[in-house]
Amino acid sequence: MRMSKLPIKTLKEAPADEVSANAQLLIRAGFIHKELAGAYCYLPLGLMVLENIKGIVREEMNALGAHELIMTTLQRPELWSKTDRWDEKQVDIWFKTKLQNGNDLGLAWSHEEPIADMMKSFVNSYRDLPAYVYQFQTKLRNELRAKSGVMRGREFVMKDMYSLSVDDESHQKFYEAAKQAYMKVFARVGLGGSTFETFASGGAFTQFSHEFQTVTASGEDVIFLDEQKKIAVNEEVLTDEVLGQLGLDRDNLKKTNAAEVGNIFSFGTSKSEQLGLVFTDENDNQHPVVLGSYGIGITRLAGVIAEHLGDERGLVWPEAVAPYKYHLIVVSSEAQAKADEVYKQLSDAGLGVLYDDRDKRAGEKFADADLMGMPIRLVVGSKTPEGQVEYKPRSSEQAEAKSVQDLIK
Amino acid sequence: MRMSKLPIKTLKEAPADEVSANAQLLIRAGFIHKELAGAYCYLPLGLMVLENIKGIVREEMNALGAHELIMTTLQRPELWSKTDRWDEKQVDIWFKTKLQNGNDLGLAWSHEEPIADMMKSFVNSYRDLPAYVYQFQTKLRNELRAKSGVMRGREFVMKDMYSLSVDDESHQKFYEAAKQAYMKVFARVGLGGSTFETFASGGAFTQFSHEFQTVTASGEDVIFLDEQKKIAVNEEVLTDEVLGQLGLDRDNLKKTNAAEVGNIFSFGTSKSEQLGLVFTDENDNQHPVVLGSYGIGITRLAGVIAEHLGDERGLVWPEAVAPYKYHLIVVSSEAQAKADEVYKQLSDAGLGVLYDDRDKRAGEKFADADLMGMPIRLVVGSKTPEGQVEYKPRSSEQAEAKSVQDLIK
Repeated sequence: MRMSKLPIKTLKEAPADEVSANAQLLIRAGFIHKELAGAYCYLPLGLMVLENIKGIVREEMNALGAHELIMTTLQRPELWSKTDRWDEKQVDIWFKTKLQNGNDLGLAWSHEEPIADMMKSFVNSYRDLPAYVYQFQTKLRNELRAKSGVMRGREFVMKDMYSLSVDDESHQKFYEAAKQAYMKVFARVGLGGSTFETFASGGAFTQFSHEFQTVTASGEDVIFLDEQKKIAVNEEVLTDEVLGQLGLDRDNLKKTNAAEVGNIFSFGTSKSEQLGLVFTDENDNQHPVVLGSYGIGITRLAGVIAEHLGDERGLVWPEAVAPYKYHLIVVSSEAQAKADEVYKQLSDAGLGVLYDDRDKRAGEKFADADLMGMPIRLVVGSKTPEGQVEYKPRSSEQAEAKSVQDLIK
Repeated sequence: MRMSKLPIKTLKEAPADEVSANAQLLIRAGFIHKELAGAYCYLPLGLMVLENIKGIVREEMNALGAHELIMTTLQRPELWSKTDRWDEKQVDIWFKTKLQNGNDLGLAWSHEEPIADMMKSFVNSYRDLPAYVYQFQTKLRNELRAKSGVMRGREFVMKDMYSLSVDDESHQKFYEAAKQAYMKVFARVGLGGSTFETFASGGAFTQFSHEFQTVTASGEDVIFLDEQKKIAVNEEVLTDEVLGQLGLDRDNLKKTNAAEVGNIFSFGTSKSEQLGLVFTDENDNQHPVVLGSYGIGITRLAGVIAEHLGDERGLVWPEAVAPYKYHLIVVSSEAQAKADEVYKQLSDAGLGVLYDDRDKRAGEKFADADLMGMPIRLVVGSKTPEGQVEYKPRSSEQAEAKSVQDLIK
């Protein structure tokens, strides 16, 4: 991509009312635009980051045997009334609206009830189970405050997966497989070393739910981490009894801020009973389906990566989520033809290159490259030998000469 | 994809309250689920159709030099007040909601105002223009009635593109290129022969806007088509003066029902003036940007294809939008190993195969294949010679023997 053609530019400043570090960085780098507090547009490079994250999540969910679909934003109150979650005393982050005939509609903050209801059309017998479905969906949540940028929005993208199983045993098997898949996702997007399975309260059906928490200074959550065993507990379950069960010692736990990038939990059969999601077994006896729910915050992940891996100069994208692997800079007009050729060769080889071909000072281009955070900066100047580039990873201070042919290999 | 693994099944009946032919077909075939009147979930196969359509549209928009981004569903009233479109007397299909502090928010029925406002951050000088951006966005429209299935929803997916140009001449050049790109899209999704550029009223700035209308019995619009010249006029501009301008003869026009699958129009500088979207020219003089807007209804296209190309037995997907090219059926349990091998060979060769490996009667499988509408049905039975299949296009009654190797070539 030639930057001269890109309709979006880096900005000197984020809006004065933007207090979160992740949104300030992403806005200045031209990845997002603040529409209102807690709702951000994803500009071309920001959308590429989201699509890369979604691609990784999609692969891992498909590998679990799950199928992608997409539910609706408009929701029927009657479904949520059945589970006592329409009332704002129970769920305080609803956005609601009305049809022209005056009937209420909900705007999707979650999809458990609609998914369970929809699956009633397709699940009759034990032969129809297990079933695993997921979506990438825009969720709307009427948060009282929205000061954490894309880490907690009023409008955000979530991957939510649902498992329908015949019994606890088969449910538990999938639940464990999902845990493994989640750790793979966080490793692949570059947060592996700092993301930990975290025990949290489980609600009515199970003792625990499981969060995936990335240790980062700006995280809104507080967890207690055993760095050796690589598991953590949420404050709400930090009791001697739980620590005993998990084989953890209070003295080895480090209290730390963290951002919840995923969570998974079991509904057991409670929601299926409320909504009438049942199946018949081999003997024609009816049972409620065992339900599980598995979330990953896609836009939040982008924010955590931006804030956690970024530095004082700007963003630092891991290669797997970066819009482009290379940020190619031409630093003098005499070198333009040479740089054009490098751009062409790398692009023809299928490598992602953001090419700063703009008529700007070198210093400004270097600053933009640091701010935008592609993994590797390539520089071509008038003294660069033909077929060579100056090569510097974003996360390193060391530049070296490399041949274009080596990059293609 | 093995149908035995798919969590979704065909249904005997669509819901009793579903009156539209496209939604009835798509529901029975397991492509969509009706959440409420005018809002449909896209199940795995339905989502694949949407993604295939989006892929085609994306290629053609990118070829125009446009860049994909994504705006928000939540919108600020103040932007729409500036153009007098917040008031429900002006726009009668708003869904609105409120923040917890009582402030109003709009739910996106369109994005012209937010896009124009956002681009103020990036457009200062003539050097920043032209700029072309587009998105695939879920739009929410509070339609009084919603009886046309996915052809007119309260919630639907639209591709909307916006052009920002320095003057009328460069605007017009892009506008004409967009027209060509649109006709390519409709041809590629299988509606080429029945989709026509249609002159409609242009509003304050230009004499005409341009619709793209697919001639189909269930279309909600009425157009007057010159079948020879392959252009049409909308009823609202059917005057002798207009016909004279366009070189059309009233006697050669055929009145016909049609579905509007795309439309494009010029805003001139009116919206830019209202919203303050300006640029400075070479002499530092300020001008409002010339704006154009270009829509394609993605979910509507899926509905038009379903209804227009479908027949009494079910859906008939063109190959470019079909979830899978082949629908492979094994008709006896003895042939299972042979069919498994065909499935493996075709899949390994990268061909899309929906494999009906379910334990069902042959008649039921054939009926499902017709209902679901993959372009080509392949049958393997106990008498089918090794390495062979019975091959029948969905749109033909003639089956023939073919070798798997021929399909791979």
